[in-house]
Amino acid sequence: MRQQALEYARTHQDEALNGLIELLRIPSISALPAHQPDIHRAAQWLVDRLTAIGLENARIIPTDGHPLVYADWLHAAGAPTLLVYGHYDVQPVDPLDEWHTPPFEPTIQGDKLYARGADDNKGQFFAHVAAVEAYLKSAGQLPVNLKFILEGEEEVGSPNLDKFIQHNQDLLRADALLISDTPMADPDTPVVVTGVRGLVYTEIFMQGPRRDLHSGAYGGAVHNPLNALVKVLAALHDEQGRVTVPGFYDDVQELTPAEREAINAGPLTEESVLAETGAPALWGEPGYTVAERLSVRPTLDIHGIKGGFIGEGGKTVIPAKASAKVSMRLVPHQDPHKIARQFADYVRRLSPPTVTVEVVTHAAADSAVVDIADPAVQAAGTACELAFGRRPLFQREGGTLPIVATFGKVLGAPVVMMGLGLPDDNIHAPNERFHLPNFYRGIEAAIHYYDIFSTVAPRR
Amino acid sequence: MRQQALEYARTHQDEALNGLIELLRIPSISALPAHQPDIHRAAQWLVDRLTAIGLENARIIPTDGHPLVYADWLHAAGAPTLLVYGHYDVQPVDPLDEWHTPPFEPTIQGDKLYARGADDNKGQFFAHVAAVEAYLKSAGQLPVNLKFILEGEEEVGSPNLDKFIQHNQDLLRADALLISDTPMADPDTPVVVTGVRGLVYTEIFMQGPRRDLHSGAYGGAVHNPLNALVKVLAALHDEQGRVTVPGFYDDVQELTPAEREAINAGPLTEESVLAETGAPALWGEPGYTVAERLSVRPTLDIHGIKGGFIGEGGKTVIPAKASAKVSMRLVPHQDPHKIARQFADYVRRLSPPTVTVEVVTHAAADSAVVDIADPAVQAAGTACELAFGRRPLFQREGGTLPIVATFGKVLGAPVVMMGLGLPDDNIHAPNERFHLPNFYRGIEAAIHYYDIFSTVAPRR
Repeated sequence: MRQQALEYARTHQDEALNGLIELLRIPSISALPAHQPDIHRAAQWLVDRLTAIGLENARIIPTDGHPLVYADWLHAAGAPTLLVYGHYDVQPVDPLDEWHTPPFEPTIQGDKLYARGADDNKGQFFAHVAAVEAYLKSAGQLPVNLKFILEGEEEVGSPNLDKFIQHNQDLLRADALLISDTPMADPDTPVVVTGVRGLVYTEIFMQGPRRDLHSGAYGGAVHNPLNALVKVLAALHDEQGRVTVPGFYDDVQELTPAEREAINAGPLTEESVLAETGAPALWGEPGYTVAERLSVRPTLDIHGIKGGFIGEGGKTVIPAKASAKVSMRLVPHQDPHKIARQFADYVRRLSPPTVTVEVVTHAAADSAVVDIADPAVQAAGTACELAFGRRPLFQREGGTLPIVATFGKVLGAPVVMMGLGLPDDNIHAPNERFHLPNFYRGIEAAIHYYDIFSTVAPRR
Repeated sequence: MRQQALEYARTHQDEALNGLIELLRIPSISALPAHQPDIHRAAQWLVDRLTAIGLENARIIPTDGHPLVYADWLHAAGAPTLLVYGHYDVQPVDPLDEWHTPPFEPTIQGDKLYARGADDNKGQFFAHVAAVEAYLKSAGQLPVNLKFILEGEEEVGSPNLDKFIQHNQDLLRADALLISDTPMADPDTPVVVTGVRGLVYTEIFMQGPRRDLHSGAYGGAVHNPLNALVKVLAALHDEQGRVTVPGFYDDVQELTPAEREAINAGPLTEESVLAETGAPALWGEPGYTVAERLSVRPTLDIHGIKGGFIGEGGKTVIPAKASAKVSMRLVPHQDPHKIARQFADYVRRLSPPTVTVEVVTHAAADSAVVDIADPAVQAAGTACELAFGRRPLFQREGGTLPIVATFGKVLGAPVVMMGLGLPDDNIHAPNERFHLPNFYRGIEAAIHYYDIFSTVAPRR
């Protein structure tokens, strides 16, 4: 059955690619309310596609935010059940003028496919859609019971996912969760991710005067909220790059020498990150290597500052309001809700009496670690080796996938992260792209995985 | 002749208002390249209007940026010559969603006229257009020789004005320069401004990585340019509100007790500024009263910070670039070019090696003080008293009018600032407005001034 599916996949690569391109044309940006119709269009497109390839019960599931898409195939009697997760929403596209091709007109150049979502995550989860299609269209069956759950709010912090999983445990019950939403080390080196960081996403709102003022008429007497805000934002790191929020590191566990050695055995080095990013010099918490800082240490980043005038030319305004988006990446044992409270308290304490301040928490997600010894995780090693010709690295990842922690906690099954992206795929940035050879090898890795998993994973 | 003009003005207020409304409909925003056609439309409209009211030689004068408008009437043999300055360009309108009426659809509510430019400066200089019209349409002549020079780049720092004045001294030669572009203390208390602050307008550009990065993948190892920028911006003030740029205060002269007393005898108090602005508390350089901080002390304000994502929702981006617009208001003896160099040096020194930094000076204008004893300045006191029924205050103003310093230096004649705005006219802010009784009394003040000036000012 596996050979038939592999054969089908190899002879139907163009069909898989054309399906992905259709999906990429839909600008399903979850952060922007104006794109709500596109979110629904993408969800409906997926329901139609999943039905067309032979899955059953395909449907849109509403939430308080953007809907989920579900489908299944449950006829592998006695075999374990695999839940495949992906997200069909994408990041905003600004700065739009830095895209070389329109973000929602997928464009192939060489072996790269350019489009917003090409890697994160439409391209990656579509490899599974194509793998399932290969089985069902060739052998007429799958070696496992399989469920798809595709989210529409991952890029806005999955605000409704926890509740959905809590309330739909029977629907989602599975022997493992499989996710392709992480990067490989390079085109020939797959990575099985063994942990993800948590996230708190906040916004600080300051108000000074009740209306915008002329800086000539009021400068020097009325505190400019932008002047006040940068003082608070600057105080969030010390001069060495440590986060200064009181209690921030309290629950972070120090690593054992063996853990540090394992992390630093990976391909991430100062030289590789400098070459990859073009940054003039690296930066970060003292006492930790770059591989450690990018995986097992918590961080704080400012994502945007609003207020005043950022058009061309000059405007001498003291804005009434200024705000900043700030997120923190968290590591195991840090409670995102506790960190959010500590952060808000600290910002309020730092803020001068010349402004009023409000701190809003937009999202809070737990970090998670994976048991490398679990057969479901080990199966990914074998599947990658068969598809990519090289044993994958097993390493932690700096990003956040809220479903990993929630799924593990609520459903008690292992989470397998077998990613198909590349570090230079420009996710969350202009000119996002997907390495097409990874797409085709990813389809084969998925075909291998389903079959291996059917034999190694016990039915729980 | 003066009585005829006053009579004409009183019976033609609606015509004056309608003319102003026509001009306010043209969105002549000098900072935004997209509005260049509107700048030219406004300039042409003014040439037509100035010709229609009986002025001569009305024409558009090109510069390297936006053009000037000139017109004159030079038939008052033996009388002195008055140059009237105004600017027909306006500030940008964002945040647009905070306007209660569209900024370029002038709307009258009670005795207020709402529109961008209603006060700053179309409404104020149009009082002079109406005053000249009143003389020429009633008496057929003016008591003085009069020239209009209307600028299209005041709101972007007058980058081409100095050169124009240097190269056109004959065209502009006059016995005094009269400007209505400053605020009164309240609707019944006119102010003759005796000094304006200088300005340096800069922009700091930082670049970290060569492209936008995902904060999960790179946070903690690549310095976020926004994180770096806020550290630099925060360091521009000390904790007490003093500017920390080395040398910034070196050339500022301390005030004599008599000067301090005069400044603090004005209507500006902590209470008045708190009530006027709604700020939770005041702020600024220690050791100086609010009236001093707003007129004779230099300041530094951030006007906008660009980089990353400021739309709704969240985006976890480490932007490749971040920039900030920063201006400084300067006082007598501070050289704007020297301050601009000191600022750029300091910013470069503060910037970490994790980013590249560039500092651009967009505009640099000298401060200026006026000789209160000059008969041309004293004439404004009399004109205001006749039109408003109260002797004006003579006080310094916190804003910047580049032409004041340049005109005084190059042409050696006194500058008279007889303003018609109000502190709550929302200039440079949403819902800019003009107090219409000030417009009509301003027309009469101008009529009085021209006639008084013709007798008190000697032909130089």
